[in-house]
Amino acid sequence: MNPSELLPSEARERFRAGLNVPTAGWSAGWAQANLIAVPREQAYDVLLFAQRNPKPCPVLDVTEPGEFASSIFGGDLRTDLPAYRVFEHGELVEETTDVTGWWRDDLVAFLIGCSFSFEAALLEAEVPVRHVEAGCNVPMYRTSVPCRDAGALGGPLVVSMRPVPAEQVATAVRVSSRYPAVHGAPVHVGNPAALGITDLGAPDFGDPVEVRDGEVPVFWACGVTPQAAVMASRPPFAISHAPGSMAITDLRDSTLLVP
Amino acid sequence: MNPSELLPSEARERFRAGLNVPTAGWSAGWAQANLIAVPREQAYDVLLFAQRNPKPCPVLDVTEPGEFASSIFGGDLRTDLPAYRVFEHGELVEETTDVTGWWRDDLVAFLIGCSFSFEAALLEAEVPVRHVEAGCNVPMYRTSVPCRDAGALGGPLVVSMRPVPAEQVATAVRVSSRYPAVHGAPVHVGNPAALGITDLGAPDFGDPVEVRDGEVPVFWACGVTPQAAVMASRPPFAISHAPGSMAITDLRDSTLLVP
Repeated sequence: MNPSELLPSEARERFRAGLNVPTAGWSAGWAQANLIAVPREQAYDVLLFAQRNPKPCPVLDVTEPGEFASSIFGGDLRTDLPAYRVFEHGELVEETTDVTGWWRDDLVAFLIGCSFSFEAALLEAEVPVRHVEAGCNVPMYRTSVPCRDAGALGGPLVVSMRPVPAEQVATAVRVSSRYPAVHGAPVHVGNPAALGITDLGAPDFGDPVEVRDGEVPVFWACGVTPQAAVMASRPPFAISHAPGSMAITDLRDSTLLVP
Repeated sequence: MNPSELLPSEARERFRAGLNVPTAGWSAGWAQANLIAVPREQAYDVLLFAQRNPKPCPVLDVTEPGEFASSIFGGDLRTDLPAYRVFEHGELVEETTDVTGWWRDDLVAFLIGCSFSFEAALLEAEVPVRHVEAGCNVPMYRTSVPCRDAGALGGPLVVSMRPVPAEQVATAVRVSSRYPAVHGAPVHVGNPAALGITDLGAPDFGDPVEVRDGEVPVFWACGVTPQAAVMASRPPFAISHAPGSMAITDLRDSTLLVP
């Protein structure tokens, strides 16, 4: 079956069984979410970081300590994503498809909007989405733009990049700006160097994609940003999704649309 | 001088000197904000309550513990509002025009959007705003609609009410919905009983206003909601603005507008 036609519960079942692939293009029309889970003691800093950096960190839901489901995610947050990253003091200690053994009673999970949610709308407006065409992960880059700090948490803005034909840039901005809960309008259009990105061919997360003649690289704020803050700020413990391997929620993309 | 023409800094100076009046209609074009300040230990619950109840609690800014200014409020949060309420274990212990003596080193202040910000846009669209015409405070009501709990914090949704001529209700909805950061579209139109409000003439906060023949009562989520949650949930200590006596910020209303 085409992954784009799977219901969220069906997609989650496959990931629970061990399938490990990026989720771009999966369960079309259903919102995907970034995951960052930290102990309750660090949760205020994460929530405040999100409040102060709403473009990269639009919070869709926050769990109670120790819980592993959410009102927008009927599955099990410990097993139903394709892949996870576990951090201790900012160091990646494991990448795995199941974090049941790592989950703690005091963990608070944040589900953060993902730009995959506006890709269907881009395609409908006939704006091509290269990484979906290519069947790979979206390229993501750490920038030189700092986020606003919150308590012990700080770090760089992370962006995702999609090459857009020059004549369609305005359409891409207009369409994505209607989805503020999933990063909204681009943070930058056209000049990677202005963001401190020296080589588009070497993303920090995900896969490189071709930028063709006549195309402009367009950059959106990315939900990997809190993960980069965890790596920069070294809280004692954190679990995140593996970049591009999202939580597929029970929320319709259309509910995130503003008029 | 007409209060609507005062700059935020000029308005704050008058309040600092002791003037105690509701701020509806003051400093036209500048955003006003609700204030709720709690000790750092309770701050996560307040921030999570706001995240889970975004209609009544759109957070504009959060201070560092002990600070009494903010990036959007150049004045002194302890003196520059017309009036404050001080709560201990949910009980109102003082209403005063200066809380310098009550401020604590661990207090975190939340500035929350206020529906006064879209009143200028309503007036521009020729929708009358009765409490501004009457020169009184907006009527506010505790409803029977519960908010979503967050940790120890829970309570009822509080709403503000504006009577709108029936033929202009759609305009009022359309105009206010463009301001999601200051409560956005109404939460209810037309039937006070559906919100558990038995007598429009007896608001829980603010002043009653006349509802004329051919007018429909329209209800917007209100930033007094976190204050009602404090009264219902009895955290050890909290400071709020007095309902209707807002913090006048250095943020332009227009920056809160979505396209």
